[in-house]
Amino acid sequence: MNLEHNTYGKADVQVLKVFRQGERHSVRELSVSVRVEGSAFAMNYTASDNASCVPTDTIKNNVYATAAEHLKDEAIELFAERLADNYLRRYSVIEKVTVSIDETAWNRVNNHEHSFQQAGGGRHYCVVEADRDGMEVSSGLTGLTVLKTSGSGFAGFHECDRTVLQPTDDRLMATTVTADWAFAGGSAYESARDKVVDCFLTVFSEEFSPSVQRTLYRVGEEVLGAVPEIAAITMSLPNEHYFPVDLERIGAKSNGTLFYPSKSPFGDIEATVTR
Amino acid sequence: MNLEHNTYGKADVQVLKVFRQGERHSVRELSVSVRVEGSAFAMNYTASDNASCVPTDTIKNNVYATAAEHLKDEAIELFAERLADNYLRRYSVIEKVTVSIDETAWNRVNNHEHSFQQAGGGRHYCVVEADRDGMEVSSGLTGLTVLKTSGSGFAGFHECDRTVLQPTDDRLMATTVTADWAFAGGSAYESARDKVVDCFLTVFSEEFSPSVQRTLYRVGEEVLGAVPEIAAITMSLPNEHYFPVDLERIGAKSNGTLFYPSKSPFGDIEATVTR
Amino acid sequence: MNLEHNTYGKADVQVLKVFRQGERHSVRELSVSVRVEGSAFAMNYTASDNASCVPTDTIKNNVYATAAEHLKDEAIELFAERLADNYLRRYSVIEKVTVSIDETAWNRVNNHEHSFQQAGGGRHYCVVEADRDGMEVSSGLTGLTVLKTSGSGFAGFHECDRTVLQPTDDRLMATTVTADWAFAGGSAYESARDKVVDCFLTVFSEEFSPSVQRTLYRVGEEVLGAVPEIAAITMSLPNEHYFPVDLERIGAKSNGTLFYPSKSPFGDIEATVTR
Amino acid sequence: MNLEHNTYGKADVQVLKVFRQGERHSVRELSVSVRVEGSAFAMNYTASDNASCVPTDTIKNNVYATAAEHLKDEAIELFAERLADNYLRRYSVIEKVTVSIDETAWNRVNNHEHSFQQAGGGRHYCVVEADRDGMEVSSGLTGLTVLKTSGSGFAGFHECDRTVLQPTDDRLMATTVTADWAFAGGSAYESARDKVVDCFLTVFSEEFSPSVQRTLYRVGEEVLGAVPEIAAITMSLPNEHYFPVDLERIGAKSNGTLFYPSKSPFGDIEATVTR
Repeated sequence: MNLEHNTYGKADVQVLKVFRQGERHSVRELSVSVRVEGSAFAMNYTASDNASCVPTDTIKNNVYATAAEHLKDEAIELFAERLADNYLRRYSVIEKVTVSIDETAWNRVNNHEHSFQQAGGGRHYCVVEADRDGMEVSSGLTGLTVLKTSGSGFAGFHECDRTVLQPTDDRLMATTVTADWAFAGGSAYESARDKVVDCFLTVFSEEFSPSVQRTLYRVGEEVLGAVPEIAAITMSLPNEHYFPVDLERIGAKSNGTLFYPSKSPFGDIEATVTR
Repeated sequence: MNLEHNTYGKADVQVLKVFRQGERHSVRELSVSVRVEGSAFAMNYTASDNASCVPTDTIKNNVYATAAEHLKDEAIELFAERLADNYLRRYSVIEKVTVSIDETAWNRVNNHEHSFQQAGGGRHYCVVEADRDGMEVSSGLTGLTVLKTSGSGFAGFHECDRTVLQPTDDRLMATTVTADWAFAGGSAYESARDKVVDCFLTVFSEEFSPSVQRTLYRVGEEVLGAVPEIAAITMSLPNEHYFPVDLERIGAKSNGTLFYPSKSPFGDIEATVTR
Repeated sequence: MNLEHNTYGKADVQVLKVFRQGERHSVRELSVSVRVEGSAFAMNYTASDNASCVPTDTIKNNVYATAAEHLKDEAIELFAERLADNYLRRYSVIEKVTVSIDETAWNRVNNHEHSFQQAGGGRHYCVVEADRDGMEVSSGLTGLTVLKTSGSGFAGFHECDRTVLQPTDDRLMATTVTADWAFAGGSAYESARDKVVDCFLTVFSEEFSPSVQRTLYRVGEEVLGAVPEIAAITMSLPNEHYFPVDLERIGAKSNGTLFYPSKSPFGDIEATVTR
Repeated sequence: MNLEHNTYGKADVQVLKVFRQGERHSVRELSVSVRVEGSAFAMNYTASDNASCVPTDTIKNNVYATAAEHLKDEAIELFAERLADNYLRRYSVIEKVTVSIDETAWNRVNNHEHSFQQAGGGRHYCVVEADRDGMEVSSGLTGLTVLKTSGSGFAGFHECDRTVLQPTDDRLMATTVTADWAFAGGSAYESARDKVVDCFLTVFSEEFSPSVQRTLYRVGEEVLGAVPEIAAITMSLPNEHYFPVDLERIGAKSNGTLFYPSKSPFGDIEATVTR
């Protein structure tokens, strides 16, 4: 038998840090997951020998300690890089470490000094993969749900004996964006993220969408044009259907204003755009 | 055997309506649940006789038809009232109807004419109970999650041999507000809701909290003072604990900035404030 | 202003206890919630005075301590009673206590001495309300999902201009049972629960169902007949629709065998049967 | 700009099929997801040209039609293979198709002819990837939650200044198994799945576990020994912690029987075992 691949670590280490500048506080709340790899870990599996094993409890404790000493009020990617570097320096047995961070965002209540409200509008995450030769950083966002009531159609598609769908030049279109992008260099992570959101919302709202696929690609073009440091962007845009209610058979006037969400099954569109 | 109580209906009828004023659209997305009661329905249970039974499919269709014809871009309570009235008028067999509506809120993307982003920051709901003698309206909000990093303590409490908790005059406090309020009259539902949120956020952020209980009551006082039409308000304020990480035993400096969420178990505080 | 009603406590205190009889172990895993009431607690709200307040942390600790000393491998209702009694005896300020327990069931793996597999097929819960004058016990089950492919119809119902549903004497019927029942006395909680499940499954499978309502009532009749200690039973039986797929318009033969689940919206049927 | 990779399809197409052999029925309930790839689909993205696009609605309809005509009461892998083959034959534009099926299992109620109860104890799934050159089949199970109260330890691990964990030769161990395995050939999918579950439960219950890692590998060894057709197995075994309650500080006797689940953060162990 052969142990082809293995990885272990601690997932979902949740931590909130308070930054106090006099009376004015700020907070960051993160869920951190750390996975490590190294050739010495094979013996944990094949020989019941734990000598090389850094316990997942220790991995967790090191997240806490590093957050206490090194987490700043800044892009989560920077803390993920620092944390990845820390594991590689502390534990020679670790050859590769993957740090994933997912942020719970808090907004200030009425610009108050120490009161916050949990933000909506999607979550940010990042993944840093690091070994002794370097790091790769990717950033992502998920849970941004949007809908347009005009400016979307779908026509000219392949037809066959299974086709029921009618072509249309005016339909509702809704999706919950998941996007992640890889950096070719640089560390302007927060401005990159803002630009990705801005490109998405601009293309989504301003351009006619002849298909989810086309809109996805147009966003990719705009993002790569706007952010030189982004090498590639992958988007997953589920087509969350809203269908017109058939009012005629229930004795009501059908005027094209009433829809019901039918989120399962859903169209499942995903692609990667690179330079 | 005796059929002591019975109710039936259709739950979670989801509907999105588009309002088109020229190029400028707006949308409302609702989940509507309707429950009906009436003495004639007993025979559906006790005698296998369905003659009095308005099928739940029909109840659903009537939600759609009424939404198509009568849902406006206005407070959900007004549509719930109209819908309740509609069931009582259409079906003489219905003696009481309860309409519950839960709203999924959409905000405009960059003030765009027909593009929307799903809003965070809590959900609105309402419940209208109506019979031939009148209606009772209550409104609610849920899912508003807040946190304060200062201005909260808990001390002077009962102590016994099960006590481990230390008194403190400075702790983190976090909660996810669920509140519902009953109206003594009037129909200024949206301004009432705005004032409830405003009272909550103001008391939460501006006043020192000696206990979740005290904060709850102070919000109630402010709401009843600010909105004469509200007869009573019930709040449920789970105490979502954030505990300090014990850094000393893992070799890191403890400076009171690092916390971990421990949301289960949670303190469970609920009360009703009336005039 | 008036504090009309208040209650507080600790929710979702999760605990697993191991019972070791030599090499053979057994386990019980519970989520316990405790809510207390008492006239002295009003001052926690109205006067910022915590002197009467038993902290929710203490309430939690007492769940642990009581479980360590008094939880046996027996019906959860018996532990809930013991726990309720314990709070009343320990804290004179508590006038009423409500203990709710929800069980995560574990089955033995292959009759193994100390290895267990989490059980499916629904969850058990109970609620004990106790004050200085006595206790009321109710038991419940939830999450029992059943389906029948024959022996169910719905016809002879009220028709109107909103009616689309066709009468049928053969349809699929599916539901997820939630039931709770109150005891008039006795403590044969586990055998009562077994009989409730047995009555439900027998009526559901053996009898033709002319409506969900009728099936609900028939189960109630059987339960009250089979278990003299049960004073009343409330059931909630959502009608989880499975609709036939319309195969003809996609060029496939329609032979009445293919259905798709459409669980939202759902029929919402609830009633209480008493003696 | 370059469209590096793209895929689209329909996800979560839910279907229940009834098999009627006289009075005795059986049912299969599946969630089917289909993703397709092909070089011609690029123009949907880069040129707003939908001519090659088989709509996801059509993809869904073909799941229904194929299920109506070809779904048998047999291993889900066989239907996934048939479905994958069907897409490749019907649509020349599709170069690769991935069919994923997730099953909701139903057990008979008391051996009844047409009444069923939803099964617990984990879910089965499979993934078939097919192109013009052949197919690859993998099977999986998820949601099998197990716990052992003895026969598990963790000691001899790496220690450092972040170490708090004490070595132990007796701890609780709990996990929720996710496993998937690839076939080198053959089609005895159901017996393979039964043997995987059996190997897992046997190793888990019968062997002392010096670490989650070691137990994972031992299961892999047993599976590869028992099922020659399985080429590789990947397991993910989260270490779902149950920690002892610290009873001493709350005035109760500590006798090592009481634990609380602390499922977040969790140890995250994953590996692939091959021949």
